[in-house]
Amino acid sequence: MPRISDERRAANRAVILDAARRCFARDGFHQTSMPDLVAEAGISAGAFYRYFASKEEIVREIAHETFVNLASGLVATLERLDAPSVADVVEVITTALSAATFTADGREIDLDVQARVAVDAWGAVLRDEGLRREAGQGLRRFDAGIAGALARGQAAGRVSAGLDVADGAALVVSLLPGLILRRAAFGTDASAVGRAAAALLDAPAATRTGAHRSRTLPSASSPLSQE
Amino acid sequence: MPRISDERRAANRAVILDAARRCFARDGFHQTSMPDLVAEAGISAGAFYRYFASKEEIVREIAHETFVNLASGLVATLERLDAPSVADVVEVITTALSAATFTADGREIDLDVQARVAVDAWGAVLRDEGLRREAGQGLRRFDAGIAGALARGQAAGRVSAGLDVADGAALVVSLLPGLILRRAAFGTDASAVGRAAAALLDAPAATRTGAHRSRTLPSASSPLSQE
Repeated sequence: MPRISDERRAANRAVILDAARRCFARDGFHQTSMPDLVAEAGISAGAFYRYFASKEEIVREIAHETFVNLASGLVATLERLDAPSVADVVEVITTALSAATFTADGREIDLDVQARVAVDAWGAVLRDEGLRREAGQGLRRFDAGIAGALARGQAAGRVSAGLDVADGAALVVSLLPGLILRRAAFGTDASAVGRAAAALLDAPAATRTGAHRSRTLPSASSPLSQE
Repeated sequence: MPRISDERRAANRAVILDAARRCFARDGFHQTSMPDLVAEAGISAGAFYRYFASKEEIVREIAHETFVNLASGLVATLERLDAPSVADVVEVITTALSAATFTADGREIDLDVQARVAVDAWGAVLRDEGLRREAGQGLRRFDAGIAGALARGQAAGRVSAGLDVADGAALVVSLLPGLILRRAAFGTDASAVGRAAAALLDAPAATRTGAHRSRTLPSASSPLSQE
């Protein structure tokens, strides 16, 4: 077996995973065979099997990406928000899920493809304890990232003091599968949800408790304001 | 072939669909075979095939239930709300999805089972045009039911006048897959999301625009108030 560099190895692996994502998005985990994957990757079966010995390994790796990488990217963006409102946090998510691609491990991944794969990955989670554990970790990291952002917003008076930030995180994170599913099944982007969140949630906490501050005050302090 | 009454026919069909739901919830659509379904139903293969000629037909029927029946039940409940706030509308959904069962066509269906089946049904939608059409119809009916409820709430001043009710419906309906997935994968109930919605969304529109009305006013007018 010829020795290859780490860079070459990583590139081959990326080629295989990109091919797997395309196959799974088109045909689903169950209707895709190992020969389908080898053919799509355009490399020899011998080379392919040096990276992944079975379809199950590839399914796990692709599902892993879905849960961990997407959450990591969103959490990193949330951490850059100083004092967000709930609507700002929702906007991070709706903006990310309306984009054409997302970046994971320095690679651009087609979000239409990833959305379709995510729906299959949820089904896989129900029947694979290891995946369920990984999905749970991704979810907890995501919950914590959102709760942290909401807590900073709350400290700055931009999120209602009456909100338990863990509950708020549960609300916001619950939007994600619906947005992904709607995009995968119907091509619907997330902008309507972003607008609704802005209309319903953007009032600073001071307004929410009946103070005189108008909710039409400039929201220029919003780090994600599009005005 | 012996003639049987319509009641008997309906009962047999229900037995088959209950068995199919249990099989699909346990093993998924793809890992369930027609003989598995016949065995679980506990009736002869000959009798079984009089109702459903293929697994695909049963998958379609079960997926149909998921999209149409659940939405119909929720829409019927939403129609009974006179002038709901956004939180009231969310509470209809979180309450329904926290229950042990839901009722469809007069039958009680186990919601843990239905939640797991729903996740598989989403995957099926991506690759079956007929199912996609049905899911789209269920979704539009659901969107319309929510938008109608929000419009009544808006007319009564309980929903912010600045909300486009179609956007609001998109927000609320986007919560559903996340709540179903979290229950199916982790057994998490929807109560945290209900609490967050109440904390963030229950202020009447008058409060949201900075009027003097306190949001700690009694909310006894809420048709779903649990106090």
